[in-house]
Amino acid sequence: MRGDSRVALDPWGEAKVEDYEKLCKEFGIQFVKPLLPEFRDPPAFIRRGVVFGHRDLVVVLNAAKRGEPFAVMSGIKPTGDFHLGSLLTMKEIVYFQKLGGFGVYCIADVEAYEDNNIPFEESRLIAVDNIADALALGFDPRRGYIYRQSREPRVKDLAYLFGKGVTLATITAIYGERHLGLYMSALIQVADILLPQLSDFGGPKPTVIPVGVDQDPHIRFARDIAHRFRDRLGFIPPAATYHKIMRGLDGSPKMSKRSPMSYFTLNEDLDSVKWKLMNAYTGGRATAKEQRELGGIPEQCCIYELCLFHFLEDDDKLVEMYRRCRSGEVLCGECKAEVVELVLGFLRDHQERRRGFIDQAIKIVEEGEREPSYL
Amino acid sequence: MRGDSRVALDPWGEAKVEDYEKLCKEFGIQFVKPLLPEFRDPPAFIRRGVVFGHRDLVVVLNAAKRGEPFAVMSGIKPTGDFHLGSLLTMKEIVYFQKLGGFGVYCIADVEAYEDNNIPFEESRLIAVDNIADALALGFDPRRGYIYRQSREPRVKDLAYLFGKGVTLATITAIYGERHLGLYMSALIQVADILLPQLSDFGGPKPTVIPVGVDQDPHIRFARDIAHRFRDRLGFIPPAATYHKIMRGLDGSPKMSKRSPMSYFTLNEDLDSVKWKLMNAYTGGRATAKEQRELGGIPEQCCIYELCLFHFLEDDDKLVEMYRRCRSGEVLCGECKAEVVELVLGFLRDHQERRRGFIDQAIKIVEEGEREPSYL
Repeated sequence: MRGDSRVALDPWGEAKVEDYEKLCKEFGIQFVKPLLPEFRDPPAFIRRGVVFGHRDLVVVLNAAKRGEPFAVMSGIKPTGDFHLGSLLTMKEIVYFQKLGGFGVYCIADVEAYEDNNIPFEESRLIAVDNIADALALGFDPRRGYIYRQSREPRVKDLAYLFGKGVTLATITAIYGERHLGLYMSALIQVADILLPQLSDFGGPKPTVIPVGVDQDPHIRFARDIAHRFRDRLGFIPPAATYHKIMRGLDGSPKMSKRSPMSYFTLNEDLDSVKWKLMNAYTGGRATAKEQRELGGIPEQCCIYELCLFHFLEDDDKLVEMYRRCRSGEVLCGECKAEVVELVLGFLRDHQERRRGFIDQAIKIVEEGEREPSYL
Repeated sequence: MRGDSRVALDPWGEAKVEDYEKLCKEFGIQFVKPLLPEFRDPPAFIRRGVVFGHRDLVVVLNAAKRGEPFAVMSGIKPTGDFHLGSLLTMKEIVYFQKLGGFGVYCIADVEAYEDNNIPFEESRLIAVDNIADALALGFDPRRGYIYRQSREPRVKDLAYLFGKGVTLATITAIYGERHLGLYMSALIQVADILLPQLSDFGGPKPTVIPVGVDQDPHIRFARDIAHRFRDRLGFIPPAATYHKIMRGLDGSPKMSKRSPMSYFTLNEDLDSVKWKLMNAYTGGRATAKEQRELGGIPEQCCIYELCLFHFLEDDDKLVEMYRRCRSGEVLCGECKAEVVELVLGFLRDHQERRRGFIDQAIKIVEEGEREPSYL
């Protein structure tokens, strides 16, 4: 086999895997890999280690196996359309819902107000879009609950309850020196995480929170508060799964709204997405000749990462894509054209499916508005 | 006239009046005295300068004169029975209600939880007592509104709104380094202050907040936030009145729960109150002989202060009490016996009257519980 021997030969890995290992050791996050046999029909993002770490997940998997109640909870800050990060989280929620979990999805509009200055009237509209995306991706509202923070008195009240005893030292260690509203929305976030364990939802139960690994401080904060209120409210410390963070399409370390070329949304114009993909950073060589000789470097390639994370569910096909790249059999242009078809095909289907869910999304938002709110 | 010429000769004053003057100058609090002619039927505590300072009160008095809407708002932390401080605040509220103001009275149970660790189930019971006291003292619920913070979603929501942009520097300057819940309850307090200006209560209007002068930082904080949300919610900066703080009956600088001999409550056993009064710190001399010669010092006397603040509404009678003391005509024992009769008479009447209001107080608490709350 040809190729650059300096790069690790692992179709499931990518360049920065050591960083994740370091993270796990440093913060006591456990690896998902040894747990793999415990997952029923693990989807690609679990098989391939995109979801690489966890806390206490065994408790949740055991509940699922025994048919006991458990919940899966996560959320989105309504600042714009679903992107690949929101997609991954939603796929996880849908997977755990299929295992029998009660799904809770939070539209974090208080956080969007405190952190991004988005008025509630505006985030209300974004919420409709986000909820339609969630439904189109398979979130089952009959076995779940979707809400906006501003319209959920339980989370707002829990935040007041939890604020007691949280010192400035604790909160600034997690969030830095920010304004008071941001800390309040952080407490609301802890309340979101513990909401599925209230008696209104059948009481304390194992709950898994799928997040990007950068969100671990919030998880630890929530576990700390669950512990402090255990006697009073019976909380079981929330479990979590951690997924890797995708690099930007332009080769930047992280997809970011500030760099439109680094990401696309699920509802973006297809020509725009195509253009971004065709200009994406790959693991190609300086010349076609060189690439035919040395092979490409899929570990460095954003297009390959797209397939690894999301758009090539079939492991054999992914291995074949990897092999063809490493061997120099295929060049970037041809490969990109194939992946563009995969991605656009998915987006086309999704965008059509979600149109059918807009009415239901509006209904969910309106139902939430039966609760009084003055935000 | 005999007496100690080193003590200022002012039946309305007491020893520390200079401190209040200093406070006013330092923080831009205005004096009530020049406004006295503007008050309709000013009660003793206004005539005598117990309420000595204000901010923007003219705006409120003008509204009252013109028959325009205005509000009076204050509250109590439900940690125990009404004491003389709560009594004074309630007298002010009742006075402004009689001038035509809409009265809002807040049972600050979130603050009692955050600051004093009092569970909501416990403060609920104390709330009933406090509300019965308020009603017995003349608070008119037909022209007012009494609520518990934990059951008032509007104040809880406003606090989330107001948190935005309040920096750590601002909040620690006012409240010191405390836990997060306490800062949140401070924002709820600002929401309490601005509640009467919401559209549910007829929209923005002049509002006066009667408080002890030690509460001025909260008032400034509320005025600051009113200013910042003026464009959005139309707030008029809340006005305030400041009353002097009574010394402890035992001569300590302030009445305090930690020193049971320093204060009594409105529902205390009459024998206990009598005993505290008979042992109170006075302006008497070392010996009866000396006192007959030099006269007493009412400015130093807690018993005299009780009458000045609360229990001798008739100015002529107070002047006469002052004169008899200064001249040495009356000794402390005899004077105390007279004042004990005044105080016990008031308490006896109040305690009987309040029994008739317990049912209504329970009803007010229960009505508030129609709002959902998970605290």
